[in-house]
Amino acid sequence: MSPVETQMRREVLEIPHAVKRLLDNGGDDIQRAAHAIRDRDPTVLVSVARGSSDHVATYLKYAAELLTGTPMASVGPSIASIYKRQLRLNGSVCLSVSQSGRSPDIVDMTRMARDGGALTLAMTNHPDSPLAQVADHTLNLHAGPELSVAATKTFVNSAVAGIWLLAEWAGDTALCAAIRDLPGRLDEAIGQDWSQVPNALGERNSIYCLGRGPAYAISNEAALKFKETCQIHAESYSSAEVLHGPVSIVDRGFPVIAFAAEDMAEPALAEVADEIAGKGASVFGTSTRLHHATPLPTTRTGHPLTDPIALIASFYAMVEQVATSGGIDPDAPRHLSKVTETR
Amino acid sequence: MSPVETQMRREVLEIPHAVKRLLDNGGDDIQRAAHAIRDRDPTVLVSVARGSSDHVATYLKYAAELLTGTPMASVGPSIASIYKRQLRLNGSVCLSVSQSGRSPDIVDMTRMARDGGALTLAMTNHPDSPLAQVADHTLNLHAGPELSVAATKTFVNSAVAGIWLLAEWAGDTALCAAIRDLPGRLDEAIGQDWSQVPNALGERNSIYCLGRGPAYAISNEAALKFKETCQIHAESYSSAEVLHGPVSIVDRGFPVIAFAAEDMAEPALAEVADEIAGKGASVFGTSTRLHHATPLPTTRTGHPLTDPIALIASFYAMVEQVATSGGIDPDAPRHLSKVTETR
Repeated sequence: MSPVETQMRREVLEIPHAVKRLLDNGGDDIQRAAHAIRDRDPTVLVSVARGSSDHVATYLKYAAELLTGTPMASVGPSIASIYKRQLRLNGSVCLSVSQSGRSPDIVDMTRMARDGGALTLAMTNHPDSPLAQVADHTLNLHAGPELSVAATKTFVNSAVAGIWLLAEWAGDTALCAAIRDLPGRLDEAIGQDWSQVPNALGERNSIYCLGRGPAYAISNEAALKFKETCQIHAESYSSAEVLHGPVSIVDRGFPVIAFAAEDMAEPALAEVADEIAGKGASVFGTSTRLHHATPLPTTRTGHPLTDPIALIASFYAMVEQVATSGGIDPDAPRHLSKVTETR
Repeated sequence: MSPVETQMRREVLEIPHAVKRLLDNGGDDIQRAAHAIRDRDPTVLVSVARGSSDHVATYLKYAAELLTGTPMASVGPSIASIYKRQLRLNGSVCLSVSQSGRSPDIVDMTRMARDGGALTLAMTNHPDSPLAQVADHTLNLHAGPELSVAATKTFVNSAVAGIWLLAEWAGDTALCAAIRDLPGRLDEAIGQDWSQVPNALGERNSIYCLGRGPAYAISNEAALKFKETCQIHAESYSSAEVLHGPVSIVDRGFPVIAFAAEDMAEPALAEVADEIAGKGASVFGTSTRLHHATPLPTTRTGHPLTDPIALIASFYAMVEQVATSGGIDPDAPRHLSKVTETR
């Protein structure tokens, strides 16, 4: 559809290779960090991130709570960078996620976490960055250079590095096997045909993305990408939250995408998707349990905690097409630059 | 403007009295709970809430971290209700916020937190509710019956009860004094003239609400109310996050409201508001530090941590006018009922 192949498209197509590169080269970093976490036996995890990286943190929060029973708190970087407040973090592990490793507020917050007693881990595509300097352990994402403003392969590699770390910490061999299998699954996922979604969008300017549990993080990331690359006002909700008020803006034909993993939340998410379809909305979902909403072709990964990663790969391939067919260059979104440095 | 006085309007006008009732009658609950928290000396706080109550939890997260240095994790109720996962919460305090105290997932999650070793506190307007049954301590909100579907006075009373609890725990006498002063300040706040905002909305269907630090929670609540009562797609962002992608949908005349407390984040928030105004957006803010955006008349409360409560009172009074002048009955929003019971 697009006359010129965008950088974003090239990077989406590279996702399976980028993940394989991480799996081939990242093992030592992961093992060392997992060992350090086991030694610490944390009572709480804290995450420090913004934008797409913060959606990775949300995914890892659900995964960590489900795998290890340890609560994870997302800490606003402003606590350190603006308010200069020292948190008490003895016995905790701090996970900072930043593609560039350069935003001053992320660096400040990570330093404060270390000063407060946390074991600090940095996940970054730039292991020589300022963030890596203030972390006890750095996990190199091995994603290769990312030139598009819209993060795609670094999002996926951050998610894979994080879930791999948690799987090693928890000693979950079934999850480790599903992670090793990801390059092939992601190759399938980026080829899924989601062209029904752009067709339903028409001239609509508002969309809801829905998820629940770990897949809610994917819904967050999808909504951001719709805004960033397509100038469409997409907003993400937990399928449990959407009925607490937000559903009020849904009218006939309102587009909704429900991102479901094959996990214990799938029936509840499918039920909400069907309920909203019953109000006249145009609802799609990555589930075979839908009765009124329209199922999208979905790649499963052999484990509920890796399923969300395949969902975002299929979404990225689709959203790039929405952008370019709408005449927008997703490599250079309006008002944006690649590295956002926040103080 | 509205031919019939709505229930929502009556309840917004009642806010100062509802807060006074809480201050007059809630002290024993607060003292007992604050004493129990001091005894526990928690390493982490967890919050359990949905919808407007979850925005209260976000406000209290920032306040707790700033006042006491203790991180707060928001836990998705699905961890208990859907995934049946037991978190390890020894040494923690769990704060559950629910107007009705009846949603099964909030009750399930609170019970799981208690089973996991947390000291559990319930903030509810119904101290005889199922939520109160599973909590070690219950804080009665004393808001009186709330009949409008849109929560207003229960949001304010939850925020006041929570900040009062934190102030007592931290022994912050200046904050306690500002809290006692709130009824008079809120009386002023609900009378502020924000009619410039509805005039700027015109036929616009997308809005951004911005905040940072504790006032970010107010931005979240405002965005939900725009959707719920006005069918306008408002979305809330941290002023630090909005430049990571979301700003891409901002075009000429795009309405933005920046909710600033008089605190250390105000300059950074005002700077972002001005930057977005410079892109042609129609930006309002509750700050005297704005150069390009338009300042709104703002009630200050004598303490940075109580300022956000006055902001939402002024907003509620305005948004009810937007709803009714648009021909929408905010007491009966489309697709909604008062108690949302989520499993």
